[in-house]
Amino acid sequence: MQASEAKMTYAVLGVGAVGGLYGGLLAKSGCQVHFLARSDYQHLKQHGLRVESVWGNFDLPSVSVYQDARAMPVVDCVLVAWKTTSNHELSQVLPHLCGPKTMVLVLQNGLDVERSAAQVVGGEKVLGGCCFLCSNKIGPGHVRHLDYGRIAFGEYDSLLRGQITNRMQKIKQDFSLAGIDVQPAEDLWEVRWKKLAWNIPFNGLSVVLSADTSALMNHGPASQLAEELMIEVAESAAACGVAVPESHVQQMLTYTRNMVPYASSMLLDYQARRPLELEAIFGNPIRFAMAAGYQPKSIQMLYRQLQFIDWRNRAGQPG
Amino acid sequence: MQASEAKMTYAVLGVGAVGGLYGGLLAKSGCQVHFLARSDYQHLKQHGLRVESVWGNFDLPSVSVYQDARAMPVVDCVLVAWKTTSNHELSQVLPHLCGPKTMVLVLQNGLDVERSAAQVVGGEKVLGGCCFLCSNKIGPGHVRHLDYGRIAFGEYDSLLRGQITNRMQKIKQDFSLAGIDVQPAEDLWEVRWKKLAWNIPFNGLSVVLSADTSALMNHGPASQLAEELMIEVAESAAACGVAVPESHVQQMLTYTRNMVPYASSMLLDYQARRPLELEAIFGNPIRFAMAAGYQPKSIQMLYRQLQFIDWRNRAGQPG
Repeated sequence: MQASEAKMTYAVLGVGAVGGLYGGLLAKSGCQVHFLARSDYQHLKQHGLRVESVWGNFDLPSVSVYQDARAMPVVDCVLVAWKTTSNHELSQVLPHLCGPKTMVLVLQNGLDVERSAAQVVGGEKVLGGCCFLCSNKIGPGHVRHLDYGRIAFGEYDSLLRGQITNRMQKIKQDFSLAGIDVQPAEDLWEVRWKKLAWNIPFNGLSVVLSADTSALMNHGPASQLAEELMIEVAESAAACGVAVPESHVQQMLTYTRNMVPYASSMLLDYQARRPLELEAIFGNPIRFAMAAGYQPKSIQMLYRQLQFIDWRNRAGQPG
Repeated sequence: MQASEAKMTYAVLGVGAVGGLYGGLLAKSGCQVHFLARSDYQHLKQHGLRVESVWGNFDLPSVSVYQDARAMPVVDCVLVAWKTTSNHELSQVLPHLCGPKTMVLVLQNGLDVERSAAQVVGGEKVLGGCCFLCSNKIGPGHVRHLDYGRIAFGEYDSLLRGQITNRMQKIKQDFSLAGIDVQPAEDLWEVRWKKLAWNIPFNGLSVVLSADTSALMNHGPASQLAEELMIEVAESAAACGVAVPESHVQQMLTYTRNMVPYASSMLLDYQARRPLELEAIFGNPIRFAMAAGYQPKSIQMLYRQLQFIDWRNRAGQPG
């Protein structure tokens, strides 16, 4: 690896709302960034990447983009920025990008979403992070970042729990220089459960009730239901040894009430008939809570409703 | 009242799937039946009533129909056969139909739906019944009865709980002579809770998931959810001192699995943008269970989702 002052090299898997924004900012700041794209490959190759952002708009007319990981170089850091529903592809991709000191930072929603990467490269190489942002891909190679943007991240390996490691400082340095609001965390699981306190009620209810955040928060029984689901997330986390305090629940509710009306990423996936990230955001937290002796009944019910809706939404379509 | 051999006189409130079928059958068998109609009044007056039924089709070219209860005679028995969402009108209607010995039989879904009638005429005059039938109003004065048809009914007054009263025998006699499958029950609350074991999961999920019974039963997680909701109904009933055995739950599931694909009455109400019977079918059972110390969490969640859906479905419309 390079000296601590030098910027790292990056591979970014997925050029959507997350990969396009953060990968684009890193490239703009001078990092060597290699994108792995699928449907947008030709567009990115010809026209580059366009980012409209509350942090400032920019174009990268020429980006290093690949459609096959086998052609990509080994890098210092891989950002996994596609949906969890593509994680089964990591076994075909990561071996080409990872050398002995490469780290893999999984920037996805959900719980234990780092496991797929860890199974391929070993848990000691893996970190995870949650992105608190309103951002959408609005066209090929075109990302619109509307609000927020902070990344909280930490080590995945249980032996490193509680530490801010040197390599985390390295990530922090590059990301900060790129203008990204980034926050190293000692406990990745706490970061993930706290994010789930938002994702579980608002991703789930937005799809089942076809509603944006504002419609839900302005209806008494719906906002009460959102709060109860948050409390179940907090109780699930507590069963797993992670504290999500009542104050966090109240803060999330206030934050959502004051937010611009926002269609959750799961609602957008549903509307585009893409597979929903049900295992990452619902199945895994439920399984962890149950294994710890707590049954999150409302979350389970939402999960089953979403399974039905997702199945019907994609019936007859390739999965 | 007449001698025990004479048929009783009837008023039927609502000429829909329930009132049209049962009122029509009673009239056809020779009972004096007076219908109170709203939107269909002119059509019924001019063209009479048409019933297509698995028990045999028939037309009643001339029926005694009213649009104002003040013009109606006092009768021996009033059948309340409109939706519970119209029960606030009972205080304007029942006084005109009830003499000292009139009984009021409330043929509606839900729990404690007899209360509105009891508040007007006194609980000792009131009986309640559940109709196990697939029947729809398919046009003005036109009912289509597709399957089943049994009525189970009993006394509402707690002093009469456990009894098959003489007046219940009287109803049984008239209904049986009219060809109606009718079953006097000693415990109305048991009848109602057992019916709720079907209505709560299948009315509720059919609206939230926009699905008929067959789609729900053929999807693993959705049918599991239906079963869990049934079990919560059974536990709610148990808290209220009513036994709904596990065998009933299994029987209901088998019965639904073998049913023709059926759109629940609540789904039809939703599609027609009519108010949903949420208080009768959800609010009341939840309140009774909570008062008895049991919290039906999944039913509560379904109730809140339905409140949101019902509110949006009728936003900007007269309630």
